Amino acid sequence: MKVHGKHYRSLWRDGEAKRVHCVDQTQLPEVFEVHTIVSLEQAVEAIRSMRVRGAPLIGVTAAYGVALAMTEDGSDHALDMACRRLQATRPTAVNLAWALRHMRQQVAPADPLDREAIAWREADAMAEDDATTNAAIGRHGAVLLKNLHQQLQRPVNVLTHCNAGWIACIDWGTALSAIYQAHDSGIPVHVWVEETRPRNQGRLTAWELRGHGVPHTYIVDNAGGHLMQHGKVDLVLVGADRVSRAGDVANKIGTYQKALAARDNDIPFYAALPSSTIDWQIGDALAEIDIEERSADEVRFVRGRSHDGLTREVQILEADSAVANPGFDITPARLVTGIVTERGTVMPDRLAQLFHRR
Amino acid sequence: MKVHGKHYRSLWRDGEAKRVHCVDQTQLPEVFEVHTIVSLEQAVEAIRSMRVRGAPLIGVTAAYGVALAMTEDGSDHALDMACRRLQATRPTAVNLAWALRHMRQQVAPADPLDREAIAWREADAMAEDDATTNAAIGRHGAVLLKNLHQQLQRPVNVLTHCNAGWIACIDWGTALSAIYQAHDSGIPVHVWVEETRPRNQGRLTAWELRGHGVPHTYIVDNAGGHLMQHGKVDLVLVGADRVSRAGDVANKIGTYQKALAARDNDIPFYAALPSSTIDWQIGDALAEIDIEERSADEVRFVRGRSHDGLTREVQILEADSAVANPGFDITPARLVTGIVTERGTVMPDRLAQLFHRR
Repeated sequence: MKVHGKHYRSLWRDGEAKRVHCVDQTQLPEVFEVHTIVSLEQAVEAIRSMRVRGAPLIGVTAAYGVALAMTEDGSDHALDMACRRLQATRPTAVNLAWALRHMRQQVAPADPLDREAIAWREADAMAEDDATTNAAIGRHGAVLLKNLHQQLQRPVNVLTHCNAGWIACIDWGTALSAIYQAHDSGIPVHVWVEETRPRNQGRLTAWELRGHGVPHTYIVDNAGGHLMQHGKVDLVLVGADRVSRAGDVANKIGTYQKALAARDNDIPFYAALPSSTIDWQIGDALAEIDIEERSADEVRFVRGRSHDGLTREVQILEADSAVANPGFDITPARLVTGIVTERGTVMPDRLAQLFHRR
Repeated sequence: MKVHGKHYRSLWRDGEAKRVHCVDQTQLPEVFEVHTIVSLEQAVEAIRSMRVRGAPLIGVTAAYGVALAMTEDGSDHALDMACRRLQATRPTAVNLAWALRHMRQQVAPADPLDREAIAWREADAMAEDDATTNAAIGRHGAVLLKNLHQQLQRPVNVLTHCNAGWIACIDWGTALSAIYQAHDSGIPVHVWVEETRPRNQGRLTAWELRGHGVPHTYIVDNAGGHLMQHGKVDLVLVGADRVSRAGDVANKIGTYQKALAARDNDIPFYAALPSSTIDWQIGDALAEIDIEERSADEVRFVRGRSHDGLTREVQILEADSAVANPGFDITPARLVTGIVTERGTVMPDRLAQLFHRR
């Protein structure tokens, strides 16, 4: 993705140096700022504070977190501690656990003196893989849009929730990767961008789509069902934070309501995700997936640009009203039309077969 | 409802004077301010700008608008113009049309010199009727909560959307009237208050519930379905802006998504409303009810209290992203468990029978 005419990834290593840079997503879309991470401590902070967010990007950031930890201290104890601290930052996205497991498998058997080099090499490879994987997801997802366009003979209206784009990954995105690739190949696409309270990641999606020149309209989360009732949505396409082997989709809070509305109006509902998002251990997603309860302040305070041009927060709810703020919900597989992965698109019950899992 | 120890209605006539006072809801909850309406012009402005809002309250305000118009000029032309201008303020709530029709029926046959007195008398009566009606709605609605409490033997968790409370009516409210009366009679109730973007009327509901001492938790609109999946909601109870004779419910945008989630989790979904909200002319609600498209600025800007204690607006979306902002949606009768009216609670298909309509 280009910003101010320059191509950026969401997170990248600073040449051969032992540090990584990332786009600070807590400042977007008001301010485009590059943030530098030079220690395990700062990697933990970046994930927890959501400077980096999006399941795939969290995974790669955690991998670099391990590399930074091994640069500081290559001992078994340091490796254990690093994995434990990184794992504790965000409980729902499984890519984090997947990345840490992979890093540990590669790093732990080596001599402590070699671990630093191995960890950086593996983290770099994971970042490259993420970009390649997301490009493939986008190619497969774009086929859905192309087919709909051929059938409808008019621009395809896609509704998306949260941000499953460029900045949720190293590059391309998952759900938005499909939209970018369809758009780039000349398929007319219009995107309904859901605001996605409480953190308003729809603003990030709108910012990305503006940058890429994709026609879009921003709506509040309450409006999606109404638009579907009136025939204004042809496809719902979202990312995912964790998917069960049966195809239940854990994604940003509010996704389930969209899947219900899609089903009620016979609109296909797809989730696009890399296979690292699939948790093969999960049977009953509703019972087994730990849903992160986030800070009440995310609901109480809203950030935006003030009349004076400054970025400000306003408090919309007094401290004497309690707040609940679950970060994710589960869309049961029965509401999911298909899952788009780097290997292609399948119905949820064919997921295990696609990845040769029994 | 008491504010600073004093009982208030949402709108009231200033003794025998030819002016009305109202709580300025555009200032709530940050500032409690009484606004005075002395002309038709100001009545139109108060409805359009949502200083007064909520279907029942809009109806009574329009009635006083006619009275103010007749005070200025009792001619046929003035009566026509007043009704036309007031009708144009908000298209969806049918109480507005109902109130104007009633006023015209009472006022039009009289001598122009008598119209002023008749109009004020009728508007006063309509305000009294609204309070009486809402008290009755609350009594019937409280029975639902009482029955649930007896069955569950624990506090009843009610989810509500938008504000169907004290300040949506002259007094009591519709959905919240049931909650207030249950609470006052000792039934333990906890309310999930949905934020209700874009105008965040959940803030008004939270403010009312705080004032009345009812336990509640504020959530974003995305969270309702998740809470229902996890057994944390026993009943969904909302107001309505217009109800078809078949029991389709037009209400604040996002209500339909709640009804879908309630149905998917076997949770009862009720709408509480005075019979003046029923539009007996409407057959196919989805096709026939005009859904108000409101200003994009409601979505782009969020108002709250700044760190410096001032009420400020922040802009959350740049002007170069388009916005759609439908104000209401339709919940089809098939998703509605029951409708609570001043005459009692019925299934949607018994509504016409309850009011002796064929």
